[in-house]
Amino acid sequence: MRFAKVSEHEHFSTEKLKKTNLFESPQMFCDTYCLEPGQSQKLHAHAGATKFYYVLSGRPTVTIGDETRELSAGEIAWSFDGEPHGVVNASDERVVLLVAMAPRPDR
Amino acid sequence: MRFAKVSEHEHFSTEKLKKTNLFESPQMFCDTYCLEPGQSQKLHAHAGATKFYYVLSGRPTVTIGDETRELSAGEIAWSFDGEPHGVVNASDERVVLLVAMAPRPDR
Repeated sequence: MRFAKVSEHEHFSTEKLKKTNLFESPQMFCDTYCLEPGQSQKLHAHAGATKFYYVLSGRPTVTIGDETRELSAGEIAWSFDGEPHGVVNASDERVVLLVAMAPRPDR
Repeated sequence: MRFAKVSEHEHFSTEKLKKTNLFESPQMFCDTYCLEPGQSQKLHAHAGATKFYYVLSGRPTVTIGDETRELSAGEIAWSFDGEPHGVVNASDERVVLLVAMAPRPDR
């Protein structure tokens, strides 16, 4: 099966940001990230990898390198090799992101 | 600059499917593909690469391997290493896709 309706793969956790995998290979993974208000992915970096956050819904606050922006649906942010990146849901609404990274890290 | 509003990067051509690059690195490219009615990307394959089509708008007909489906906004289709994939806009409305591939091919 090589098809999915992304909205059927949006799952939230009261504990922390919830990742749900859509597909993965050695070259790439693609997940949804679902963030309740207050949840976040801390600033971090991946050597040798490119990653993006595409906003499906909500208003995430995304940092790439030394730039931080509040985004909304239809906006995308990406990090290149070794660039710090992270996301905070500082709003009072849920956030859903489509996230892809290449290559897939060990996890 | 590591941020973009995807709708500002949707460009159509009367001649053929129009690709507009959002970002690229050796690990991944990310484009919009805009298809007028009747336009297509022929079935093709990439050895050693993973690629996806995420539907932003319209009703593309996507083939992955031996499966063909008409998709709508919010659906995603992906091809793994060497799998044939292609897309046809067989509808009478415009189609916009978010497309990522890893690693980036020579082009």
